[in-house]
Amino acid sequence: TRVFGLALSHADWVLDPAELANKFNSKTKAIILNTPHNPIGKVFTREELQVIADLCIKHDTLCISDEVYEWLVYKGKKHIKIATLPGMWERTITIGSAGKTYSVTGWKLGWSIGPENLIKHLQVVHQNTLYTCSTPLQEALAQAFWIDYKRMDDPDCYFYSLSRELESKRDRMAQLLQESGLKPVIPDGGYFMIVDVSTLNVDLSDVDEKQPYDYKFVKWMITSKKLAAIPLSAFCGPETKRQFEKYIRFCFIKGLCLSSSQHNLVAWRFKKPNCTHKD
Amino acid sequence: TRVFGLALSHADWVLDPAELANKFNSKTKAIILNTPHNPIGKVFTREELQVIADLCIKHDTLCISDEVYEWLVYKGKKHIKIATLPGMWERTITIGSAGKTYSVTGWKLGWSIGPENLIKHLQVVHQNTLYTCSTPLQEALAQAFWIDYKRMDDPDCYFYSLSRELESKRDRMAQLLQESGLKPVIPDGGYFMIVDVSTLNVDLSDVDEKQPYDYKFVKWMITSKKLAAIPLSAFCGPETKRQFEKYIRFCFIKGLCLSSSQHNLVAWRFKKPNCTHKD
Repeated sequence: TRVFGLALSHADWVLDPAELANKFNSKTKAIILNTPHNPIGKVFTREELQVIADLCIKHDTLCISDEVYEWLVYKGKKHIKIATLPGMWERTITIGSAGKTYSVTGWKLGWSIGPENLIKHLQVVHQNTLYTCSTPLQEALAQAFWIDYKRMDDPDCYFYSLSRELESKRDRMAQLLQESGLKPVIPDGGYFMIVDVSTLNVDLSDVDEKQPYDYKFVKWMITSKKLAAIPLSAFCGPETKRQFEKYIRFCFIKGLCLSSSQHNLVAWRFKKPNCTHKD
Repeated sequence: TRVFGLALSHADWVLDPAELANKFNSKTKAIILNTPHNPIGKVFTREELQVIADLCIKHDTLCISDEVYEWLVYKGKKHIKIATLPGMWERTITIGSAGKTYSVTGWKLGWSIGPENLIKHLQVVHQNTLYTCSTPLQEALAQAFWIDYKRMDDPDCYFYSLSRELESKRDRMAQLLQESGLKPVIPDGGYFMIVDVSTLNVDLSDVDEKQPYDYKFVKWMITSKKLAAIPLSAFCGPETKRQFEKYIRFCFIKGLCLSSSQHNLVAWRFKKPNCTHKD
């Protein structure tokens, strides 16, 4: 990972074992894990996953592991499936996504991996909710898997080429954001980047007070900078909303989107900002 | 429509204008209409639709019209869109389905037609629930529409060929059901046929009493006759369940399904039934 002056990285977002252990008790049925994490971009380490696994085993808890960004991991980092840790296969449902793996998010096709005694219940849920998936898309996905499975070590294999391609987009995005006075958190996985916007000190106290700061900031940014992003508190429940309202989430997967964002970020750098921000 | 000795038809399932009028009051926001109807196979007449339209206009009520079987209407019957009745366009959302129109139900692709002031709210719902549809499927649907639009009067046009093809399947299904001692209701639209099974007098009083008769009958039929169907009370709320528990729903769209059903229906006719049915 490149070193950025202002930037934070995943290393600043760690799992607190004591805090997590505190949340477990005899009534804990399941934990939902997400690695690589959306929106933070954190890739959980083996040590962190072991902490979770130990708690799951101790309290006989299921683990629903959302690993839809499993192939989007950047240099020096490695995605680890918690189901591969000892004692975890029998209690883990691992969720994967064709949309994320092959950049076809509109397809809404995915899979769950787990032991038969857990998957059979998911099949009941599937039958009574989704009912069917589209056969042509399933066929296309199977073909794509077959092609990439046969070229697993080839640089053209989509599982690897995508993350390599995205890594330079990530670094360019981070650089532009920093040059605009924002403080990005460099993601180790996924195609989102959260950004601390409090460094800009945009005064939004005269805007509708009921909304969290990040919501107000995003609206200000859309009108003032022609840049769109997602307020991070949108991902939070009421308990944690306040902790995340200085962050917004950018996306850097799309060619068009990135260049448009870049264009406006570049414009931002060179124009005097029409806000109260101190630089 | 062919005349069947035992068979009922849509003419036995009429809309009671007084009963419907009774359900409307100043708090009535919307009515959901379904024509051609699943599971009954009824195609609402212009007169019946006018009754509904008059009530909608009188009470300023929205009409959500589920017309997904719009092209599956049999000889002598005509599907009428309630939105075409005077005063109804501005209060109707008409729902169509690629799955039903082109026999690709797993695609889960459809459309809503209505005035801009109503559709804009559906767009908000769409954005926050479905979010996207699959582009390849949308493209395929657009191509299919374009092909059939250009051959609208051609016998190969899928909009018409499907219902012609299904009509003979419907009639054969009805005949076999009757010959087995069941009482089909001949549908004017759709690809389902409901069947009165009470004529068989299968004694299921020793089976789990808590279930409606149709549930018990379907289970009996699966094991005794190797025939599957849907109990009609599954479509009903608690108020009307009892009224429909002598019916089950067969499907006659699939070649394979039909021939398998036919095979077992034929077997049923010639074997002495292992039940208490009087013939």
